This record gives sequence, structure tokens and C-alpha cells, in this order.
Amino acid sequence: MMRLDTSEPGFEAGFATLLDMARETTAQVDDAVAAIIAEVRARGDEALLALTSRFDGWAPLQTAALRVTAAEIEAATAGIPAGLLAALDLAAARIERFHAAQRPADLELPDPAGLTLGMRWTPLDAVGLYVPGGKAAYPSSVLMNALPARVAGVARIAMVVPSPGGQLNPLVLAAAQRAGVTEIYRVGGAQAVAALAHGTASIAPVDRIVGPGNAYVAAAKRQVFGRVGIDSIAGPSEVVVVADASNDPRLVAVDLLAQAEHDESAQAILITDDAGFAAAVAAAVEAELATLPRGAIAGESWRRHGATILVRDWAEAQALTNRLAPEHLQVMLPDPRGWFAGIRHAGAAFLGRWCPEALGDYVAGPNHVLPTGRTARFASGLSVFDFLKRTTWVEASEAGLAAIGPAAVALAEAEGLQAHGRSVALRLPAAP
Amino acid sequence: MMRLDTSEPGFEAGFATLLDMARETTAQVDDAVAAIIAEVRARGDEALLALTSRFDGWAPLQTAALRVTAAEIEAATAGIPAGLLAALDLAAARIERFHAAQRPADLELPDPAGLTLGMRWTPLDAVGLYVPGGKAAYPSSVLMNALPARVAGVARIAMVVPSPGGQLNPLVLAAAQRAGVTEIYRVGGAQAVAALAHGTASIAPVDRIVGPGNAYVAAAKRQVFGRVGIDSIAGPSEVVVVADASNDPRLVAVDLLAQAEHDESAQAILITDDAGFAAAVAAAVEAELATLPRGAIAGESWRRHGATILVRDWAEAQALTNRLAPEHLQVMLPDPRGWFAGIRHAGAAFLGRWCPEALGDYVAGPNHVLPTGRTARFASGLSVFDFLKRTTWVEASEAGLAAIGPAAVALAEAEGLQAHGRSVALRLPAAP
Repeated sequence: MMRLDTSEPGFEAGFATLLDMARETTAQVDDAVAAIIAEVRARGDEALLALTSRFDGWAPLQTAALRVTAAEIEAATAGIPAGLLAALDLAAARIERFHAAQRPADLELPDPAGLTLGMRWTPLDAVGLYVPGGKAAYPSSVLMNALPARVAGVARIAMVVPSPGGQLNPLVLAAAQRAGVTEIYRVGGAQAVAALAHGTASIAPVDRIVGPGNAYVAAAKRQVFGRVGIDSIAGPSEVVVVADASNDPRLVAVDLLAQAEHDESAQAILITDDAGFAAAVAAAVEAELATLPRGAIAGESWRRHGATILVRDWAEAQALTNRLAPEHLQVMLPDPRGWFAGIRHAGAAFLGRWCPEALGDYVAGPNHVLPTGRTARFASGLSVFDFLKRTTWVEASEAGLAAIGPAAVALAEAEGLQAHGRSVALRLPAAP
Repeated sequence: MMRLDTSEPGFEAGFATLLDMARETTAQVDDAVAAIIAEVRARGDEALLALTSRFDGWAPLQTAALRVTAAEIEAATAGIPAGLLAALDLAAARIERFHAAQRPADLELPDPAGLTLGMRWTPLDAVGLYVPGGKAAYPSSVLMNALPARVAGVARIAMVVPSPGGQLNPLVLAAAQRAGVTEIYRVGGAQAVAALAHGTASIAPVDRIVGPGNAYVAAAKRQVFGRVGIDSIAGPSEVVVVADASNDPRLVAVDLLAQAEHDESAQAILITDDAGFAAAVAAAVEAELATLPRGAIAGESWRRHGATILVRDWAEAQALTNRLAPEHLQVMLPDPRGWFAGIRHAGAAFLGRWCPEALGDYVAGPNHVLPTGRTARFASGLSVFDFLKRTTWVEASEAGLAAIGPAAVALAEAEGLQAHGRSVALRLPAAP
């Protein structure tokens, strides 16, 4: 864990180390992934069956076994406790409501020259959702990835999920059901991404693939990008907690550890103006670590990537937060909104003492798929916008063309594009 | 040129060929580009000077020579004819006005459970604009790439442009001046992209790089992606013109050729319901080709990639257009808006007989940087949205947390993330 203090001479060098900290080493699997994609393109479903037998520890005998049936979903979800289903329903309803509010309006702009300009939003036809199997099979992630697509109006939402030993997580199936997933396939890895991008006899191709995955899945998404859209490749998670000394050090410690428990590459940073408070939080982190089931992981993250930063005032904290551009930002100050007004770069913010970041992971409403590793400088969280695209349009009358056409002809000729110029000039009143 | 007819048995096979036509072979320059990026990261400005001497045919003696001064811009633009400057001004004003209308509003959403949810748009701090040198140095492209950034509120817009022999295109400088470019550097290729992404002593790093370039520039953008944002890598341009027999075949022919003259990989497709009209347009294409300065290029594009598609009715034309998802769509039908209402996938549409696509390349207002190669299925043209990002936020009161917190705890525990659950549970009224 790094202890920084803006009033000390070594601060800039230490902070630069924090900014440049590479928290992840990506495995080089490009060649293996290219071979898998080529195999799925060449042999379709047959390749999916063979690759699933090889990697997932069960042998589907025919293509139909890959598709999860409605009856299987019913059976799997029947055993889920009612309280847990109610929590899933509350989460789904709140996430759907927030994303519905994101839906943008079309544009129609009358124009002084007599043209009409417009912009129209339309949903993608089909989206693929990758869901990891095993330990990271998170139902909350299914809701966060699928619901924005449903709200956008996407007709087909095809989910792929590896099923180690043929088994699926019932809560993941329940989440898919609630989030409007239209098809579920028991297939994972690069082969699932290849099937979604190129299509097979049993899995129709989609237009965009979203959702987290391991190095193979990430490499496959990069390789099919261009043929289909992809979401950004998520890095390790991070949080910046900005808190003054009036907070309970234990609460702040647990908030930091909620980030650190994701994996050893996660990063949790406290910014405060009180050295004693920073020390109290650090002590509370150690105490909590001892009692957490995932304490080994969280402790490793905290020791390797954690930091406390002591600032002289809250304006300094704003400047440092903007340089960190954190994925998650928790603001535990007396006037959280006022302070947050000075923040230009953050994926998602959680304002006030009663707003731990974990609330946003599950039930608050905004998306939990967020830009990591300082990319909040230029990127945004998943949203309805990721499942819509824009078509701009222009409608011109004879008079409208006459008003602005000559300028187009002049510029086309200056650029040496005579057919461009001619297509306008031939329609002008004075044309030969 | 391919002649297709939906009423003939071979249609589906022919149309599939058209859909899958790879119109571009990308040069493999990844290793060379990786070496250039490493050199710029290691030696900064010194590497920029050396690489510029090697690739651009002039030898800047010191770093200061890379930056284009205000006096140089004044001197270079002084000789531009007033009519051309007026055309540039008209284009800039119309592009700016349309993009200003795109600016989205922030969101603040009160919530039945007593929380407040929000979403805030903020501009990127700094953007890099790559402008190709030589034949493709298009002033219109400078306006289309820089103005959306200025409208979004980006403070720094740094343009890089190679200067073969030290020379720059005056009209490109004039466009940069009008579009709010804040810095111009005489540097190009992968080395310019590396400088924008990683920064040197004389060029500060940016957050996103946009603009077209050759294979080296495209590969460099791919390699720095993640550290900075990039725009999509543009493929060859294409147009679909939908026209009935009441149109002038010559006008349609010139519209098709305006696309074909871009380069040999461009694609122009006519969809019509009248075989005689299709033949008349094809004949007019040949006649126009003979008189066009870029006739050799346009002819090559038309022969290799051009097509006429004969349809039985206009609904069929809609379905085929949606499958083509064209970058540009020109609709020359009696009720262009009505027909366009059925189009789900297109980059930009031009409605009516008085609206040649070239109008949109220069002066209409919407952006001319558009998704190519069927990517309009999931991608959009350049816009203000490319220079903004979103921060979502949640504000919770003690009562709000109490209302939805238990559901978060239940889901966190189901996912095995106990610190997540604890960070909420400790704040609930019944907590120990």
C-alpha cells in the first residue's frame, strides 16, 4: 500500500507511479484464438460441439443440446429462494427505469437555407452477450449487459455461457429471463465469440458482442471487431473514496475492500485531508481483512495497488481525482454534490455517506459496466447508447440546393473531386 | 459491374457476393509501426525530428519547426480566393449549427425509493486530429473532424499533418483556423499518432485521436487504443442510390460516380424497379466516365465493385438496403421520407431529387465521417457524442439506502462478494 502526501517533495513521482501502474498482464493468446475462430467459420456447429467437449468438460452429442430450453430455465430457477428472486426483480426494475430515461430523442432541424436536417436513432437488430462461467458467473452482470439492449429495442439478445461439466448457474438463468434475453447457448470461450460474429447453422450472427470474459474471450472480441461491434475490453476494477475525518473509518475501510475483493489486480485509493483519519482507515482495513472470506485476494490487492493520499484541501483532491479518472468515485464529504461539480472524469459517482459503491453494483439503477484504468478520460459506462446507432439525414428542395450548392461545388473543385462538383452543379438553376 | 435482379433464381447468391465483397486489403505494417511507436516513446521529440527527415522529405532542424505558427497560417491563407474562403465559412457555420443541435442534456432522476440518480455529460480534455498530407489533404475533412470536438467543448484540439517537402495545403490551414484547432504540428505517420498518444516535450498527450490516414496511421491508432480513444478505422466509401424511372439517368450516373471517384475500392450501387432505367444509367455512367478527370479511378471502382439491382417493388428495396447497411443512401423516389421510414441501417441519408450526396460531403451540416462496409448495422457517423463522455451518479439518503439496501446485500452474498454486502449492511438501520 502506497502512502502519498501532496505536501511532501516526492509526491509527484509517487503519484506518477500510481497513474502508470500496470495492474494487468495480458496473456498472449492471439494465435490460439485465431485458430479457433477459423475452425468455427469452417465447420460451424460441428466445431462448437468439438471445442465444447475439449474445453468445458462435457460432451454435447448434438447441436440442440447447446440451446437452453425454456423448460430447463424453469426447472433451474424453481429452487431459487423467493427473497433472492425478489432482489433480482427489484434490481431489474430499477436498472430498466434508469436506462429508459437515457433514451435519446430524434432530431429534426429546419434550416434557414430551406433544407431540413435530421438525426434518427435506431436499435441494433441483434446483440450477443458473453457471460463467463465458473466463479465470475454474476447474475448482476447479466442484468447490466442485457437490460440496456432491451430498453434500446434490440429484438434479438443471444446469450452465450460456458457450462463447466454441463452445469449452469440458476441465478444467471433467472437474471437472463428477467432481462429479456431471447436465446441462451451453452457455449463459451473464443468459439462462442466466433459463433456470434460469423454465425453457425444453429446460432444466427449478431451485430455487436458485449460482456466480460477471460483473455481468450477478449482476444476473440478484438479479432472479430469490425465485422461486429464490441464493447471496450474491461481491465481490473478500481475505486477512489474521498472522505473527511468525520466519517467512520470502518465504513470507509469496508468500501475500499469491496473493490479490493474483486481480484488481486483491483485498486482502492483513499483521498483525505487528515493524516490521523488515513491511519485509522488503514488500521481498519487490516482488521476487516482478517474476517473476510475473500480476505487473501483483497489483502493482496490492497498491498500491491492500494493507496492513501493526503491532500491539503478539497480542490487539490478534485485535481488529483481528475488525473486518476477513476472507474468508481465515492464522495463522503459534507457537500458531495458541490465537490462533485468539479469532477470532469469518472465512470460513476456515489454521493454521500449513505451511498456505498456496492449499491450501484446491484440495485441503484445506473450501469456497473464502467471504463477502467483511467479510460474515463474518454470513455463511458455501458448504456442505451451502446445499443443504438444514428442515421443523419438531409432533405433538400430545389431552392435549398440553389442556396448552398455553389459552395459545395467550389469546395469539391478545390479538392479535385469533379464528379462531386458535377452532381451538385447539374442540379443548379444555371446548369447547362 | 454486377447486374442483379431479385426475380431471377441466382439473385441470393449474387447479393451475398456483394455483401461479402472485401474491397480492401490491409497492408501488414504492425511490426514497423510498433518500432516507430517505441522510438517516439523512448526519444520523444528527437525521434519525431529524425522520422520526419526520413519519411517526409524535409529536415526540421529543431523541435520548434514542427509547430505551425499563427503567422505562417496567416501567410499561407492570404492567397486563397475570397469565394473559396466564403464557401469554407458557409460550410463551417452549417456544420457547427447541426452539431450544436446534437448536444445532449444531463439527466437528473428522482426516484420513488428516495434516491436521486443522474447522468452528466462532460467533454474530453484534449483531442488529436490526424490529417493526411498529399492528395487526400481535404479541408472538408478538417471541418468535419474538428468542429464536433469544438462544439462538445474540448479545450485542446491538436492537429498533426505530414508536410511533404515542408509544404502544407493552405486550404487545410484555413479550415483548421475556422474549426477551432488550437495547435498544428508538421508531423505525420505512425510517429504523429505515437506523439499524440504518449506525448513528447513539445506535443502534450491527448485523450482521443480521430481522422483518416494510411495503413501506418490506422495500425498506429489500433496500437495506442486503450491508452487513448480512437475513432473507427474507415474503409472504402460506398453509396446506394434508390431511384425510380422518373429520374434523369445522367444525374443518377453522376451521383454514382461521385462515390466511385474517391478510389478504386469505393462502391456505388443503384437500386431501381425499371430495367430500362438501369440500362440507361449504366450507359450514362460510361458517357460521364469519358469526361471526368478522375475517370480512370471511377471506372475501375464501377467495374470492380459497382452494381445495379432490379427490384419488384420498393418494399423489397427497403429490405435489401437494410441488408447492405450503406454508408451513404440517396433516395430519389416520389415520397422519399415515407420510404426512408422503413430503413433501419444507414450512415447518412439524402432525401429527394435535389439532394445529391456531395451536398452532405461539404455543406449540408451532418458529418461526412460515416460507418463504412456494412458497419452501419452497429456504428454511427462522427458526432458531438464522440467528444463527450458520461458520468452516472447516485445520491442516497439513509432512508433510500434502507429501502433498497437489503436487496443489494442479498445479491452480493449470492455472488460471494461479502465485502460488497458488508459495505451496505453496516449502513442499514438494524446493523450492529
